Amino acid sequence: MDFEFDARTAELYDTLNDFLLDRVYPAEAVHAEQVAAADDPWTRTPVLADLKAEARRRGLWNLFLPDPRYGAGLTNLQYAPLAELTGRSPHLAPEALNCAAPDTGNMELLAEFGSAEQRERWLRPLLAGEIRSAFCMTEPEVASSDATNIATRIRRDGDEYVVDGRKWWSSGAMDRRCEIFIVMGKTDPDADRHRQQSMVLVPRDTPGVTVRRGMTVFGYTDGPHGGHAEISFDGVRVPAANLIGGAGDGFAIAQARLGPGRIHHCMRLIGMAERALELLCRRTSERVAFGRPLAEQGVVRDWIAESRVRIEQARLLVLKTAWLMDTVGNKGAHTEIQAIKIATPAMAEWVIDKAIQAYGGAGVSQDTPLAALWAQARTLRLADGPDEVHRASLARRELRRWS
Amino acid sequence: MDFEFDARTAELYDTLNDFLLDRVYPAEAVHAEQVAAADDPWTRTPVLADLKAEARRRGLWNLFLPDPRYGAGLTNLQYAPLAELTGRSPHLAPEALNCAAPDTGNMELLAEFGSAEQRERWLRPLLAGEIRSAFCMTEPEVASSDATNIATRIRRDGDEYVVDGRKWWSSGAMDRRCEIFIVMGKTDPDADRHRQQSMVLVPRDTPGVTVRRGMTVFGYTDGPHGGHAEISFDGVRVPAANLIGGAGDGFAIAQARLGPGRIHHCMRLIGMAERALELLCRRTSERVAFGRPLAEQGVVRDWIAESRVRIEQARLLVLKTAWLMDTVGNKGAHTEIQAIKIATPAMAEWVIDKAIQAYGGAGVSQDTPLAALWAQARTLRLADGPDEVHRASLARRELRRWS
Amino acid sequence: MDFEFDARTAELYDTLNDFLLDRVYPAEAVHAEQVAAADDPWTRTPVLADLKAEARRRGLWNLFLPDPRYGAGLTNLQYAPLAELTGRSPHLAPEALNCAAPDTGNMELLAEFGSAEQRERWLRPLLAGEIRSAFCMTEPEVASSDATNIATRIRRDGDEYVVDGRKWWSSGAMDRRCEIFIVMGKTDPDADRHRQQSMVLVPRDTPGVTVRRGMTVFGYTDGPHGGHAEISFDGVRVPAANLIGGAGDGFAIAQARLGPGRIHHCMRLIGMAERALELLCRRTSERVAFGRPLAEQGVVRDWIAESRVRIEQARLLVLKTAWLMDTVGNKGAHTEIQAIKIATPAMAEWVIDKAIQAYGGAGVSQDTPLAALWAQARTLRLADGPDEVHRASLARRELRRWS
Amino acid sequence: MDFEFDARTAELYDTLNDFLLDRVYPAEAVHAEQVAAADDPWTRTPVLADLKAEARRRGLWNLFLPDPRYGAGLTNLQYAPLAELTGRSPHLAPEALNCAAPDTGNMELLAEFGSAEQRERWLRPLLAGEIRSAFCMTEPEVASSDATNIATRIRRDGDEYVVDGRKWWSSGAMDRRCEIFIVMGKTDPDADRHRQQSMVLVPRDTPGVTVRRGMTVFGYTDGPHGGHAEISFDGVRVPAANLIGGAGDGFAIAQARLGPGRIHHCMRLIGMAERALELLCRRTSERVAFGRPLAEQGVVRDWIAESRVRIEQARLLVLKTAWLMDTVGNKGAHTEIQAIKIATPAMAEWVIDKAIQAYGGAGVSQDTPLAALWAQARTLRLADGPDEVHRASLARRELRRWS
Repeated sequence: MDFEFDARTAELYDTLNDFLLDRVYPAEAVHAEQVAAADDPWTRTPVLADLKAEARRRGLWNLFLPDPRYGAGLTNLQYAPLAELTGRSPHLAPEALNCAAPDTGNMELLAEFGSAEQRERWLRPLLAGEIRSAFCMTEPEVASSDATNIATRIRRDGDEYVVDGRKWWSSGAMDRRCEIFIVMGKTDPDADRHRQQSMVLVPRDTPGVTVRRGMTVFGYTDGPHGGHAEISFDGVRVPAANLIGGAGDGFAIAQARLGPGRIHHCMRLIGMAERALELLCRRTSERVAFGRPLAEQGVVRDWIAESRVRIEQARLLVLKTAWLMDTVGNKGAHTEIQAIKIATPAMAEWVIDKAIQAYGGAGVSQDTPLAALWAQARTLRLADGPDEVHRASLARRELRRWS
Repeated sequence: MDFEFDARTAELYDTLNDFLLDRVYPAEAVHAEQVAAADDPWTRTPVLADLKAEARRRGLWNLFLPDPRYGAGLTNLQYAPLAELTGRSPHLAPEALNCAAPDTGNMELLAEFGSAEQRERWLRPLLAGEIRSAFCMTEPEVASSDATNIATRIRRDGDEYVVDGRKWWSSGAMDRRCEIFIVMGKTDPDADRHRQQSMVLVPRDTPGVTVRRGMTVFGYTDGPHGGHAEISFDGVRVPAANLIGGAGDGFAIAQARLGPGRIHHCMRLIGMAERALELLCRRTSERVAFGRPLAEQGVVRDWIAESRVRIEQARLLVLKTAWLMDTVGNKGAHTEIQAIKIATPAMAEWVIDKAIQAYGGAGVSQDTPLAALWAQARTLRLADGPDEVHRASLARRELRRWS
Repeated sequence: MDFEFDARTAELYDTLNDFLLDRVYPAEAVHAEQVAAADDPWTRTPVLADLKAEARRRGLWNLFLPDPRYGAGLTNLQYAPLAELTGRSPHLAPEALNCAAPDTGNMELLAEFGSAEQRERWLRPLLAGEIRSAFCMTEPEVASSDATNIATRIRRDGDEYVVDGRKWWSSGAMDRRCEIFIVMGKTDPDADRHRQQSMVLVPRDTPGVTVRRGMTVFGYTDGPHGGHAEISFDGVRVPAANLIGGAGDGFAIAQARLGPGRIHHCMRLIGMAERALELLCRRTSERVAFGRPLAEQGVVRDWIAESRVRIEQARLLVLKTAWLMDTVGNKGAHTEIQAIKIATPAMAEWVIDKAIQAYGGAGVSQDTPLAALWAQARTLRLADGPDEVHRASLARRELRRWS
Repeated sequence: MDFEFDARTAELYDTLNDFLLDRVYPAEAVHAEQVAAADDPWTRTPVLADLKAEARRRGLWNLFLPDPRYGAGLTNLQYAPLAELTGRSPHLAPEALNCAAPDTGNMELLAEFGSAEQRERWLRPLLAGEIRSAFCMTEPEVASSDATNIATRIRRDGDEYVVDGRKWWSSGAMDRRCEIFIVMGKTDPDADRHRQQSMVLVPRDTPGVTVRRGMTVFGYTDGPHGGHAEISFDGVRVPAANLIGGAGDGFAIAQARLGPGRIHHCMRLIGMAERALELLCRRTSERVAFGRPLAEQGVVRDWIAESRVRIEQARLLVLKTAWLMDTVGNKGAHTEIQAIKIATPAMAEWVIDKAIQAYGGAGVSQDTPLAALWAQARTLRLADGPDEVHRASLARRELRRWS
């Protein structure tokens, strides 16, 4: 056992940290101004484009992709501390490095399961950061954590597939630069539970595709990241070659995609919690009430200590999970992926809540990043499977050990 | 001891409940549409005006005001269950009844401390629901829970007062119909700790008043309620007769205003929690995953039972506090007012969080009232004095009992 | 609604409080010494006998019994604040007033369901505090919260009933003065779910009764209160006249007994929490570390404030439940009885835990009453039905309201 | 970074696990019987002696001691998983391996700071498991977490030191085989804050030493481990050569001793939590109520999942702390030692509480190890410095990073 970074991780860590300090943090205020001044509420800011160019220049591009043909070729364990760092500025850094969800998952998916043609047409521009993509899985009418509930149909008709259904929480899809949708639906409702679903590539401009509205997260539209779209697919026809993998592979592909997706979220949540803890410390050191800094009063030190203790524990569990994914595979790390999905959002939510409380009115407002960080952490307690589903599944496995 | 409503309360309760069922709940969707379609993001909807007219017709108007010359003449104990009911639709019902913060507190303040002239000029149209008002106390640069921190200056200059300072979280003030601001500032920084402050009436259109921006609350602007403004006062001159009470009375008036204000918030929070619990029950009864309704799985019943238990306890404490205010006065009920200010927002936050979780994506979005309810409950853990200040003060008093 | 004690309650409250101050608190140390010096670990102390005589003299006897033929004739609402007071010294005061479990429940049961002969033979000496009784319901082998699990058999054989089975947690039964056991068993396993069970009176000395051992509660034997016995019944024969009520009435009688039993526990738990809060305040005011009293450091004031807030809420819910039992009956108050059973032990456990922490080593030891109070509160989270059973049942009822 | 055991750890882990399965678990019931039958409530059982002999035979002896001259020469990181395993049977396994507190800390102390003579006289028989030792630091009258509070005096008088003072929680000292006491006291109350204290070896039989009573922990005496003694030292004279290190070294030695002591406790707590989780799973799989195993009802799976998640996180933090102690020293690992001291007892307490709840009456009684495990975990939230002291200190350091 050993808890030290290897040389490559350490070097990238420093490079990335410098980039954050030099470029990303200062860009946050600029970004906010550009968002406020933008005509289109659903589009990226110019400053983000600058950051992308600079990140690429510094060798901080596509770090998430383990496949060296397409990305940095880092292991999960190497990528983890880097993704954590990007979480400190989660509205700019991940996208600046072309490491933002849902594109990361979509790129992984295309790299692993896409045909040569699909990779050329869609993976290449995604890797270059030229277009964006959406993952259309969740549906408004059903509990989507149970994949057999999916109501969207993908019917074969000659050389085409015809897609009918309604999706929501298709993140990024409100932005017109989000050009390609990966849509999950049922090709064979009578097949085995986990062979009913397939995935198909649907270009945004295909007739029958209607992007209806952006969902809000608490009061946030997440507009500068393309929002979260509700989309209807009415008799949408795509060539049969747009199928990803084979018919019936949808569930397996989704599972393969979700593991890394979940750990990436958890990595960034650690960084979000670190950012909040830093703000909590700064605020309570500086703010004076009743004659003394807040940090010298009441429960504040308890919050700080407890935050540190919780962050450290969650980070180690994320790192160990990354190591397991590297050594025994995503499937072998299933329990641990569930464990971090349960532990990390709740931890981050708790820490951010304390920082908000220390800031008072500023904490819930646009004047600190805290309320937006909180909304993201809270949402991850239910996105990609609610805590309760992960808990039930993890417990079943634990129970099996002793029976 | 007795836990039954008196006859007048019971009757008003039924009348109000009918009004909610007939008119208010159905208006929620209409309100949302009108908000979306509005030109001015900071203004009330037509449907709200209709509700106000109807509430007045049904005798449900100014119920909050204990002074029978101006309002319904209810005791706090009689008003409590009614205010709770309005909390079930907190974005429409309180204002429909002319019982919404901050106008309620401002009307009480004017009724109790205003001169005849001030009452005629400002209280009358407020009671009629014709204009709105703001309470400008909190400041961005200092911890406002400590009143000695207030930096706004109110200087006497001949027959006028000159106001200089910056306020924020002046709720309602983004709406142009909010015509009058009650501003707290220091007239004598060298006086005793609690005699430094005064309050002065500043009409919105006075030169030197600049409404700068609306603060957001977890992404929400609260625009349809006039938002939460940041306002600067630069050499603002008002007649000396605009002073409320005497010079140096500001702290005492603020304290008198805050007691009822806090309990009103708590009453409504009970209703907000009841609304969330109803939604939690409905959703988990109807939503099916893995072959069974959510209500039959995992922790859901625990959430429901725990919600019920927490709501009942908080409600009783609010009712007892109301009774104490009626029998021993606001000052005598100080400990209990702090107790409910600590207990109720946290309770409501907890219950609403569970309902959100049960709804998944819909819970955090605009498709349920839950996320907005949550943001309100969360904010009340820090508005009107953060929990920590109330806790420290309540504990000091408890410690004194045993030493 | 009204939150004031009536005159009789107020008077008894003062009388009882004086008794606690004059006699009970000073007796605590004497009791501990007599326990340490006793030959028999399972028997009452002489000082307790003195307290009983004195309580009787002061008119503080059998206050729990609503039936004026046998007891004080107080309503539940009147008894609640008195029972709470006894909880402040839970190892002496309840028994000093002949108001201790399980005798209270057994006396109520005999008063309500016992034959004239049964009442003469057993209720009379119990009311006089001359003997003690046990309630033998829980069994070691099965989940006793589900009454259909009960394995003890009570077979009719001519003029006798024959009892076979094993019981545990028969509180008080290790003391030889505990002369009568009320035993629950199945007379008809094939009857309807709730008509299978009956109750029968089994005198301690009946052949076939073996008191096997005392169960411990976190290391405590509760010996001075007769402990908690495991008892086997092997072919135990009692006259048919020893049946309480009719055959098949057992479940209904148990339910009738449990409601008051649960609320009595909750009343006393409020007093236990008050005692702990007093100790917490005293300790942290007096104890100095790092140059300042503990009460001025860190989270201590938060604990105190939170304790006060939780106690007040739980007390009000207990009082309202008592009022409901008085006005709509035990069955009508079923939900509320479950609610207090969920809320109150957890509240008391929390408060006592904080006091323990403030006392450090003394808190877990015999030098304060805290550890023993804690063990009692913790145990009440599972005794008389674990929290989870009450929660599931309460939630089912809540769900029914909305479907 | 790497999360795999090295070869030596893996081998010892298997050897120890076999020993637990073959010998220790089966000995638990024997131990309980021998305790019940013992004449002396303060002494070790014969079965423990057998286990010690067997552990030695299997090479499982003094594993805790990093100094290869005296012990196994394992690093902290190597020892951690082994200590964890012993925590699964904390009343037998640690002592069976001669790895039980407080002897471990005392042996380390003598190995590091003892003179050759002291080592020969006391360390040798301790290493052989022939005698036991006590560490007399905590005092009843003062908050001992602040070392300047210590009231015991150690005065030089010619060739002797004279000890006067009162200690409690001297674990193990009720057993007569506990032959040597390490006593902390002040040699120079006027010296610098951390140079006032010294440590001296006091043989049990020295005149003036009175072992007064055993303290209880909740209801437990911990008699079979020598209990927790209150001891008075009245004019106790020992040779000057009994001083450990130099005069004024007491605080530094105590600090050196406490780091490893704290992590050892935390290691074992992980194992205690694992034991509880195993019991929780077994019980809820087997126990049926209302027609289904408990594990399929309500919150049980949530408990299990949450337990697993908490245990994993705490374990990783303990392992990382061990690694830090090995790589940067105990002082460099100070923050992390505090972090695990805060996190681990609370985690174990939580997990054990759930197992207790699942067992109902059996859970709080002598029929499962759970209540005793709980009492130990709870006590470690205040022993070796209460959580609050560690939290305040850890927070101060965190705050310093950002100011």
